[in-house]
Amino acid sequence: MKPTVELLQSIVESARPLIGQGKVADYIPALAEVDPSKIGIAVCTIQGETFCAGDADERFSIQSISKVLSLTLAMMLYDQDEVWSRVGKEPSGQAFNSMIQLEMEHGIPRNPFINAGALVVCDLLQSRLSAPRQRMLELVRNLSGEPSIHYDKVVAASEMEHSDRNAAIAYLMRAFGNFDNQVMPVLQNYFHYCAITMSCRELARAFVYLANQGRPLGLSNPLVSPMQSKQINALLATSGLYDGAGEFAYRVGMPGKSGVGGGIVAIVPGEMSIAVWSPELDKSGNSLAGTAMLEALSTQIGRSIF
Amino acid sequence: MKPTVELLQSIVESARPLIGQGKVADYIPALAEVDPSKIGIAVCTIQGETFCAGDADERFSIQSISKVLSLTLAMMLYDQDEVWSRVGKEPSGQAFNSMIQLEMEHGIPRNPFINAGALVVCDLLQSRLSAPRQRMLELVRNLSGEPSIHYDKVVAASEMEHSDRNAAIAYLMRAFGNFDNQVMPVLQNYFHYCAITMSCRELARAFVYLANQGRPLGLSNPLVSPMQSKQINALLATSGLYDGAGEFAYRVGMPGKSGVGGGIVAIVPGEMSIAVWSPELDKSGNSLAGTAMLEALSTQIGRSIF
Amino acid sequence: MKPTVELLQSIVESARPLIGQGKVADYIPALAEVDPSKIGIAVCTIQGETFCAGDADERFSIQSISKVLSLTLAMMLYDQDEVWSRVGKEPSGQAFNSMIQLEMEHGIPRNPFINAGALVVCDLLQSRLSAPRQRMLELVRNLSGEPSIHYDKVVAASEMEHSDRNAAIAYLMRAFGNFDNQVMPVLQNYFHYCAITMSCRELARAFVYLANQGRPLGLSNPLVSPMQSKQINALLATSGLYDGAGEFAYRVGMPGKSGVGGGIVAIVPGEMSIAVWSPELDKSGNSLAGTAMLEALSTQIGRSIF
Amino acid sequence: MKPTVELLQSIVESARPLIGQGKVADYIPALAEVDPSKIGIAVCTIQGETFCAGDADERFSIQSISKVLSLTLAMMLYDQDEVWSRVGKEPSGQAFNSMIQLEMEHGIPRNPFINAGALVVCDLLQSRLSAPRQRMLELVRNLSGEPSIHYDKVVAASEMEHSDRNAAIAYLMRAFGNFDNQVMPVLQNYFHYCAITMSCRELARAFVYLANQGRPLGLSNPLVSPMQSKQINALLATSGLYDGAGEFAYRVGMPGKSGVGGGIVAIVPGEMSIAVWSPELDKSGNSLAGTAMLEALSTQIGRSIF
Repeated sequence: MKPTVELLQSIVESARPLIGQGKVADYIPALAEVDPSKIGIAVCTIQGETFCAGDADERFSIQSISKVLSLTLAMMLYDQDEVWSRVGKEPSGQAFNSMIQLEMEHGIPRNPFINAGALVVCDLLQSRLSAPRQRMLELVRNLSGEPSIHYDKVVAASEMEHSDRNAAIAYLMRAFGNFDNQVMPVLQNYFHYCAITMSCRELARAFVYLANQGRPLGLSNPLVSPMQSKQINALLATSGLYDGAGEFAYRVGMPGKSGVGGGIVAIVPGEMSIAVWSPELDKSGNSLAGTAMLEALSTQIGRSIF
Repeated sequence: MKPTVELLQSIVESARPLIGQGKVADYIPALAEVDPSKIGIAVCTIQGETFCAGDADERFSIQSISKVLSLTLAMMLYDQDEVWSRVGKEPSGQAFNSMIQLEMEHGIPRNPFINAGALVVCDLLQSRLSAPRQRMLELVRNLSGEPSIHYDKVVAASEMEHSDRNAAIAYLMRAFGNFDNQVMPVLQNYFHYCAITMSCRELARAFVYLANQGRPLGLSNPLVSPMQSKQINALLATSGLYDGAGEFAYRVGMPGKSGVGGGIVAIVPGEMSIAVWSPELDKSGNSLAGTAMLEALSTQIGRSIF
Repeated sequence: MKPTVELLQSIVESARPLIGQGKVADYIPALAEVDPSKIGIAVCTIQGETFCAGDADERFSIQSISKVLSLTLAMMLYDQDEVWSRVGKEPSGQAFNSMIQLEMEHGIPRNPFINAGALVVCDLLQSRLSAPRQRMLELVRNLSGEPSIHYDKVVAASEMEHSDRNAAIAYLMRAFGNFDNQVMPVLQNYFHYCAITMSCRELARAFVYLANQGRPLGLSNPLVSPMQSKQINALLATSGLYDGAGEFAYRVGMPGKSGVGGGIVAIVPGEMSIAVWSPELDKSGNSLAGTAMLEALSTQIGRSIF
Repeated sequence: MKPTVELLQSIVESARPLIGQGKVADYIPALAEVDPSKIGIAVCTIQGETFCAGDADERFSIQSISKVLSLTLAMMLYDQDEVWSRVGKEPSGQAFNSMIQLEMEHGIPRNPFINAGALVVCDLLQSRLSAPRQRMLELVRNLSGEPSIHYDKVVAASEMEHSDRNAAIAYLMRAFGNFDNQVMPVLQNYFHYCAITMSCRELARAFVYLANQGRPLGLSNPLVSPMQSKQINALLATSGLYDGAGEFAYRVGMPGKSGVGGGIVAIVPGEMSIAVWSPELDKSGNSLAGTAMLEALSTQIGRSIF
């Protein structure tokens, strides 16, 4: 069965009653103020057909979803050994910002989707790009075909004010020799990436490259190779949902990445990418109604990687 | 591209030079004595076609591969809440026999494929089956169509003599109220399950049910539902390869389960199941040449879940 | 200033209002049933003078205080290298029954006063004594001059029924090669030692040997050498009060050992031993009013090792 | 028996052969360059008699010994609840610069002598002193009667260049709300305190206040109260020697504090303070020959707190 607008609308309505059962991220004021009743979904096929329902055209803070884009950039700029000698590929089994494992494993983060790993990726970008923030904006604008995408400067500034734990993580990696640049500028970039705002429609389109062997919509050149695209999906499947990756695979069965802004992107390789948004989070930090929408979609269109 | 005997033979020959770079499991004498030069592969499609190469008809100790079968049995006997209230679904991020996480998480094992989780599953089986060892034999004989499959009693006895750590794990779960039966009889069953000997050909055929939505070859009834089959594959993808699950997903891209006997079973949902065997292990405890054969097969037939 | 009966009586009355602010150990029924209003203190000088107040003549379960006696026995039976190669001398920094540190440090317990360490000491005694329970009874009867001291068989049996965690600890040490005997008989001995019942008066007299360079009251031979006596006191000062050793040193300033039965023994080297009893425990598992009585005594007689 | 110059000389000669068996701290060049053959000892009684041997008049980097002085300053400036709500009193059971425990215990360091605890103490001083470095210099100059004592600016600068781990520790405490000031200025003070250079003779004299109930030599006012002096000694006994506190208590039996410059200060309450120096460290980071000299002195003059 194929996705249709009607199907997506019924999925949004089925998930709407879940609103009120989760908790909006409140560690910074700028995120806490979001309207918790927002809910949206968008599907974009590899042919470029897009189906949307709910608040699919409203932009929100993509937060950790940006970690997939920064990893993609790093894989475009570096040989694979240069990346994977500095960050691992395994699920962490611990909270996304824990320092315990990082210390026991001598400053090598478990994977690029926990904070420590994403910071190492940003450190790599800082070493090789003259304007890493501008480069990221160009990437997301090209992938989504929307030149108006931008950083939310209020969110970025607010994150920087609450950056002590991420600073601690970066300094610990420096102490282990796994962080080359000054800490503060890299943190600034990292928080700007998290503060990008995009809509479900824009996200779904932007991530089609992972459903299509590395080839973005509307661009002449592949972003990454088919093998790299497969590798990113594999990492998303095992580590993309914080410490809820196993539960997400069990219920949804697609590679995916969530952000504390309430967005989740999921991939059906060879077919489509999907973006959902609902700001309230479950106890693992993933969008509660968003996960439910993806589970319903997976069941109703009979798509899963398993 | 479809698998052929010629392709499998070339894959075996390409992987053979890896022999000598890994290390045969030696924690019990009965396993340490295996010939390290053995190497085999078998593919079984959901239509029942089988392709083999190398030592695919020689039986070996399936070890932890049995954990998939004991979980399947438990899912047949219990409601899902009864199972998943006692064992989690998340990657552990730690060694397969670690007690640290088990203590911090109050006796609830992370997933059914680490030792603690498999022991809880065996405790469930002990509570509901009058002859749990006989029942397991019937299951594997039916799934593979080979009534001669049996336990290696020397291996089982040897495991029992080196069971102190598993006893510690079981007693700790008892202390947390997550283990109902006497420890020693459950350990006996667990070690017998690990001591089943099967060939690659038999394993590939036995695991087709996970490639075919729960329907085994040659049996009239499904073993588990399509949803359960998808769920087991999801757990295998995130937790089936000890602390090498991320690397395996990155390189091979299939749900799989390994054993310290050197076997690995992998699933291409909707198409086929694959079994490989080579006794030498990598540092994560997974068959070194076995993983290489699966990676080559995935690349050459263009099959992966990502 | 010297201790007097009047001083001890005033200390008991000052501490009595604390009753109700702690929590009686309730992990086994036999301990939970103790009258929480009991409170007693006894001082015994190295000359044999004894001063008592409150319920100083009522016997209670000495529990972990017995760990000092089993260590003393082991130091009498073994060379020091034989003991200290199997158990450390450092504070654990963790809960008394944690397995986390034990696994990370390969089965060598931090010190002889956490459960794991005491079990190793009991394993040593089991290897060299034909009747380890009888030998312990003889020791405490001789040290206290009270031939009627005995095990509380109800408590010992009740402990054995709740022994899963201690069994897990012992099996983990066996897995690391640091436990020589069968687990269950050693656990039986361990629980019997914990189930000895003594009064404050008896305890104070029994422990004078640690205040008097190894020489017990009323016996012709020293139990241990002056150096060994000093060493035991040093271990008590750093590790005798579970994870409250630092606070106890800060407030009381004497080597001491507590038990979950509510007793504490403390030593003023060269002068006296002190025993207090009040069943309610603080959050570290040490007698709440007992610690307060020792703090008051230390302040009022101006005695502390610091 | 009383200490004499002859006794100290014989102790130095007995310990000299140990030189070569330890390892000079080499994490910063300025420390690595010290002459490893230096060895000295000084005793200062509460009456002000001083006995010295070996290189007792050569200044060295006091490093962590300064943590006792910064704690003393904080106890002079703050109520005890203000100090002890921000840092604990228990042995850490882990390496001096570990972040694992700090994260698990929500940013409250175990005690004031591990790095995290000393940094909290420096944060306290920064909040209440206008010139915290000058104030520390005045303190040590007054206590030792030596106005020429100063910071080694090369060492302080070199520490600051290798400060990533300490920065990580401070930022993690800030993330938990347990660090009030900007990180870098506090680190600067901390490293300057560590970079104070003093001789054994000066150290022994400066620390007499801890042997004399808070009263320094040659000053009219007590530095701290008798109770506070007792408390500091108690903390030194349980936590003063990194993760070798138990072994030090067992062998030496005095409250003490070591530094990676190879110095150790030890206290015999009511009698004397002792300072030793030998740059090579044992595996716990304490001076190897220094510990041996203190053990010999304790045994030969028959002084120990146990």
